[in-house]
Amino acid sequence: MKIIVDAMGGDNAPLEIVKGALAGQKHWGVDIVLTGDENAIRGALTRCGQPEVPTGMEIISTSQTVEMCDDPATVFRRKKDTSMGVGLTMLREGQGDALVSAGSTGALLTGATLITKRIHGIRRAAMAPVIPTTTGQAVLIDCGANAECTPEYLVQFAYLGNFYAQQVLGLAKPRVGLLNIGAEDSKGTDLQKQTLARLRQAAEEGHLHFIGNIEAKEAIKGGCDVIVTDGFSGNILLKTMEGVGSFAGSALKGMFKKNLLTKLAALAVMPGLNDFKAKLDPNKVGGTAFIGIARPVIKAHGASNAEAIENAIGQAAAFARSGLIEKIEENVNLMKIEH
Amino acid sequence: MKIIVDAMGGDNAPLEIVKGALAGQKHWGVDIVLTGDENAIRGALTRCGQPEVPTGMEIISTSQTVEMCDDPATVFRRKKDTSMGVGLTMLREGQGDALVSAGSTGALLTGATLITKRIHGIRRAAMAPVIPTTTGQAVLIDCGANAECTPEYLVQFAYLGNFYAQQVLGLAKPRVGLLNIGAEDSKGTDLQKQTLARLRQAAEEGHLHFIGNIEAKEAIKGGCDVIVTDGFSGNILLKTMEGVGSFAGSALKGMFKKNLLTKLAALAVMPGLNDFKAKLDPNKVGGTAFIGIARPVIKAHGASNAEAIENAIGQAAAFARSGLIEKIEENVNLMKIEH
Repeated sequence: MKIIVDAMGGDNAPLEIVKGALAGQKHWGVDIVLTGDENAIRGALTRCGQPEVPTGMEIISTSQTVEMCDDPATVFRRKKDTSMGVGLTMLREGQGDALVSAGSTGALLTGATLITKRIHGIRRAAMAPVIPTTTGQAVLIDCGANAECTPEYLVQFAYLGNFYAQQVLGLAKPRVGLLNIGAEDSKGTDLQKQTLARLRQAAEEGHLHFIGNIEAKEAIKGGCDVIVTDGFSGNILLKTMEGVGSFAGSALKGMFKKNLLTKLAALAVMPGLNDFKAKLDPNKVGGTAFIGIARPVIKAHGASNAEAIENAIGQAAAFARSGLIEKIEENVNLMKIEH
Repeated sequence: MKIIVDAMGGDNAPLEIVKGALAGQKHWGVDIVLTGDENAIRGALTRCGQPEVPTGMEIISTSQTVEMCDDPATVFRRKKDTSMGVGLTMLREGQGDALVSAGSTGALLTGATLITKRIHGIRRAAMAPVIPTTTGQAVLIDCGANAECTPEYLVQFAYLGNFYAQQVLGLAKPRVGLLNIGAEDSKGTDLQKQTLARLRQAAEEGHLHFIGNIEAKEAIKGGCDVIVTDGFSGNILLKTMEGVGSFAGSALKGMFKKNLLTKLAALAVMPGLNDFKAKLDPNKVGGTAFIGIARPVIKAHGASNAEAIENAIGQAAAFARSGLIEKIEENVNLMKIEH
């Protein structure tokens, strides 16, 4: 198993990326290809106490980097030798089993689509983070790759999320819900109403365990395992979770910092507090899978530290081992809507 | 100041509604009209220690109730004598200054639109709750009345929310933001892009303090005072907040219940915990204003207890006193888009 890591992507590149790659190699027993500026990568390795490139790790030197300000639509035409673009090309050509990048989301999505390509028959790739819920976790698909969707996209997302929950998260019969502003069939826009009808049909035919519309509040309570939605609403849900999580965090901090007594109280509940924080910590969760691309691509958080990269590498290896892409390919005919 | 209260709406009607009306009358110094089943209301008054209808309170007897299962689109044609419908008719006819109901949201919205009517020139009424943010509060407009929107609706929501923040919340120059999946101008769907251009123009003309696109996470951090969005995304934001709030609540409960030490810790931070809970408690916040209707209508939470009704009555009185509707009427020409 060989994981390609874009060493130049993210706010903390290359040092934290390289550090995470070293940890990930050890933790998950995988080989690593680092793409990026060779001098910078070697410098980072040295700072990690590794003056030599370790066995099972190689550097593919590139001269350019995708910057956050680069236009995703044109960057790979303008810059032919970026750490991200070269990594995606290697992935397409089988010189690695999965790719991890903490670089620009838009560029990674465009690059994955244009260079690595979608699975044949899949209309749009989706971003599918695994989000924490009160009772466990759920796949949120899509969370921002596709602001504007058709019913066919959403039907495909339902299948993609379902197979991800089965193959990668190990759920036998994931409960698939359509994010909506009420549980009744009449709720939402035409997009939700048409998708609902299609997904009910898929459920009747035994292809999905579709539970109908689900409100955001119920989804976060753990009401389903796969939350199907357009990228606009999915992004609102995800970013609201992050916002309220940090809101609660700062409220708690204020609460415990008040006086000596509350500071002692903080010590007593520290393990519980840390569990709670870890549950909402993007560095622990790893990255966001791009589903629908012909090879496994994991987008790590832009602010990823070494731990986040280590976890994203583990997630990439699990994705590559899962047989998810083969499963999607076998079932792609179910996901087609006749026009 | 006379507030009409739908005594039969909500999960806890009529007892909690009547109890809240008594408390609201006293707290806010307003007269109250209770619409609903006279016997049931008198029974509730008796249970509140008021065998006689108090001075400044009257009962308008109605024989029917809008049920949650009633179709909002047809209920007021089928049932001519409901507590909600009669209340809205009285409101239109000036037999009260504002109306509070904890009944079906869909029916109240339809009834307010069909019976009490919109302000002339306003395309759609919006639901605009005031939500807590890390640094204070913000008006979220719309949060579910209009799942499908045009740029013109959103431009109107921006003005309506702006005037609400000025007239009711007392902000001199509210920061108005357009909810989007990124801050850049290119983000979102055509709806956001077209609305952004219109709102920028309104800002240039000095009508709004428009700050551009805002992500959900930044909005919850307190990045703006008025969050403009379609009802679908607004509902996702609101319900996600509720979901994560209750997620955090149950995580905290578990954390503090672990052992004797953590229970003692809970005692130490109890005041802070209660402040935090109160901030997210819908009963404390009151209700959601319907903005764009020609008279003030407040939707109280379906699960409202007496305290929630008391607060919603205060909010209704503040709305009625604020001059908001007059302000909207004076400025309605700014909100028109030529077709």
